[in-house]
Amino acid sequence: MKQTCDTIFTAAFVVTQNETRTVIPQGAIAVSGNRIAAVGPASDIASAWEAGETVSLDNAALMPGLINGHTHIPMSALRGYSDDKNLMDWLTKDIFPIEAHLTPEIIRTASEFSCAEMMRTGTTAFYDMYMHERSVFQAADRMGMRAVMGESMTHFFPGLSAASEQELRDLILALAEEWKGHPRIKGAIVPHAIYTTGPDFLQRCRALADELGWQFGMHLSETSGETERCLKQHGQRPVEYCRSLGILRPDTTLFHMVDTDGEDLDTIAEAGCAIVHNPASNMKLTSGAAPIEAMLSRGIPVGLGTDGPASNNSQNMVREMYLCSLLQKLDTMDPTALPAQTALDMATRGSARALHWEGLGTIEPGSIADFVALGLDEPNMQPVHNIVSNIVYAATGLENRLTVVDGRILYREGRYLSCDYEALKGEIAAIRQWIASKAS
Amino acid sequence: MKQTCDTIFTAAFVVTQNETRTVIPQGAIAVSGNRIAAVGPASDIASAWEAGETVSLDNAALMPGLINGHTHIPMSALRGYSDDKNLMDWLTKDIFPIEAHLTPEIIRTASEFSCAEMMRTGTTAFYDMYMHERSVFQAADRMGMRAVMGESMTHFFPGLSAASEQELRDLILALAEEWKGHPRIKGAIVPHAIYTTGPDFLQRCRALADELGWQFGMHLSETSGETERCLKQHGQRPVEYCRSLGILRPDTTLFHMVDTDGEDLDTIAEAGCAIVHNPASNMKLTSGAAPIEAMLSRGIPVGLGTDGPASNNSQNMVREMYLCSLLQKLDTMDPTALPAQTALDMATRGSARALHWEGLGTIEPGSIADFVALGLDEPNMQPVHNIVSNIVYAATGLENRLTVVDGRILYREGRYLSCDYEALKGEIAAIRQWIASKAS
Repeated sequence: MKQTCDTIFTAAFVVTQNETRTVIPQGAIAVSGNRIAAVGPASDIASAWEAGETVSLDNAALMPGLINGHTHIPMSALRGYSDDKNLMDWLTKDIFPIEAHLTPEIIRTASEFSCAEMMRTGTTAFYDMYMHERSVFQAADRMGMRAVMGESMTHFFPGLSAASEQELRDLILALAEEWKGHPRIKGAIVPHAIYTTGPDFLQRCRALADELGWQFGMHLSETSGETERCLKQHGQRPVEYCRSLGILRPDTTLFHMVDTDGEDLDTIAEAGCAIVHNPASNMKLTSGAAPIEAMLSRGIPVGLGTDGPASNNSQNMVREMYLCSLLQKLDTMDPTALPAQTALDMATRGSARALHWEGLGTIEPGSIADFVALGLDEPNMQPVHNIVSNIVYAATGLENRLTVVDGRILYREGRYLSCDYEALKGEIAAIRQWIASKAS
Repeated sequence: MKQTCDTIFTAAFVVTQNETRTVIPQGAIAVSGNRIAAVGPASDIASAWEAGETVSLDNAALMPGLINGHTHIPMSALRGYSDDKNLMDWLTKDIFPIEAHLTPEIIRTASEFSCAEMMRTGTTAFYDMYMHERSVFQAADRMGMRAVMGESMTHFFPGLSAASEQELRDLILALAEEWKGHPRIKGAIVPHAIYTTGPDFLQRCRALADELGWQFGMHLSETSGETERCLKQHGQRPVEYCRSLGILRPDTTLFHMVDTDGEDLDTIAEAGCAIVHNPASNMKLTSGAAPIEAMLSRGIPVGLGTDGPASNNSQNMVREMYLCSLLQKLDTMDPTALPAQTALDMATRGSARALHWEGLGTIEPGSIADFVALGLDEPNMQPVHNIVSNIVYAATGLENRLTVVDGRILYREGRYLSCDYEALKGEIAAIRQWIASKAS
């Protein structure tokens, strides 16, 4: 007798990203509730499972949803607002002044819009930090996306979200209460960086994470300037500074980690932290090339992220995989460095570990049902000598035809099922006009 | 009284790429035959011109067709066939052995397929070199694309296309006869590289170009290994070696030019040659980063190309523009380097000069009617603070909705008008199976 499930999805390939990286031609996924019940050849699944509905994707590759390990999604409002500038000019002359005008409403709309971009281009989950982050929680919830996120914390007060540290703390406690037990959304304590906080503030952040049982993350070692400043102020490199403060734990995710050395990485490996790599942002803002192979060889979990849409300028993890591989090859001058499979691993299994979320990043029995399907009909996706090569080196992201999060279809063949996309597009255009009026 | 034209195209933006880089909101292009008759605000065009047909694109950006300045389009048959290898292993163990099996028929089909990929992703013209190049001429002709191309010439005989130098010469003379006066296709004499030819052979190639009135191109200074070998064999750097042979002229286009210095570039500027930059290939095969700003500051025309789909792994000039900008920023550690406008200039105006083709690369009265229209409805394309930034930094290439070459619509909204795309896709899949059987 057949077992029952809710839906069976079939496609030309299922790229499982399981332990042995099995690719199943003419494969199928059986989904029950928000979990994957079974995966295998379509014929095997059809004979073993009875489904309420079957979704036949034909010429497509089902694969785990890509996980954007580091971003600031409200910044879609500022996509293309300022480019090609020196980092400090970019931040202080263009980005910070306009950010000061952003309201919770704008941040919610821009976040919803970024969620639409992510589901459109094959991403199912993300790790976010920004201001007025409650709006981002609300956006992710409404849009049906999975996320880890937190209020970006600096010791400068008044800030955009809170007038004092006490108010910021109260805000975070309220968020923790509001979002407790949400199946798709988890909170994180995310101090902005070592140069926008102090040692005591960082330790209070760490204590708050422990108090709430939230995970912990921060930008670290993004540029050589950050390292120099830390050496001057604290007599230690950034990683050593953080280690000595006791803030590096297995729940900790470090974003960027570009200007880092072997000793730093040994410390991070020992502390059990994860790292998220952001090649597009690191290239565009000229932070440099992070030493990914040195991280992976130490067993550090390394995920992949886009960083914010104001510096990327998209939220496209498919493009990010391509850049990730090319940047490592160039930086090491070794064409065998960071092959396609490793880039896909980082964007799925690696980012899942950076979000500290069990059951994500693979298509296996028992995994959470977060997956996407890249269409293979566009000419850049043919022929298929090697499906992983085509996904990493030839796809653009817009091939994506299906996005499933927690067992629910959010996007399918041009239709956004968790929002009124046309209305949202109108709202983001109105926000652009409003920003232009504030800037002039 | 109104003037008459064949077709008026309207869209939210016309990115003209004219001398002053005018962007026209709510713009229109009037086309007569294969030429642009007028361009301006849609209301002005509507009151001055009477058209047989109007194509309203609404939320899209009309822009000059991108020009792929250097590629080997038949290699789409080998997309994803071999990746992540050392250059010499890749070539000698994987690529050369399988290329030896390629027939003129396979090369024609793979070339047609690449033409489909190019028109799909916003490219209207290309500069190609490969073996059995007659098949590529035929493919470009059939598909309606614009191209400069030639048989890749080495002094190793028998070669794939000819058994002897005399036979190769006869073949090229026959091609010149066959394609004389074609409105969209021009021939070029393209010796492969200095390390696959000798000085006398190169000079005979140059003489043949002069004899036929064809332009001249070659791979040059692609890697440091090439420079070392040239210094050892000829006591000169590659550029100086070519200059001393008298083969560098204003009709000459040099592909790659990665391992180059100021003296090389002074020589190239003085000779009046053009250069084509290939960032994706240079990163993936770890050739390095070409010094683009040093080229541009000398007034050298610099175009942009994808190189072949076996090393890119696509034929997507939109992605190439993005990489082009990011690679220069990283290489110079200057975030102001190679801004979006310069990347777009290279892919349009610069590549037009690398193809030595008047009237391409801009949308102006009198220009050849080669243009495309990137849709702005996908979430990565909104909001539009700066249309050129969105085209270079946020677009993927698959936003393209319209491709016009020589006044003829080749692609529109998912439909390929110069081929049976479904049939072509089946043929390329069959070729993959055949290649797999030869490889095993």
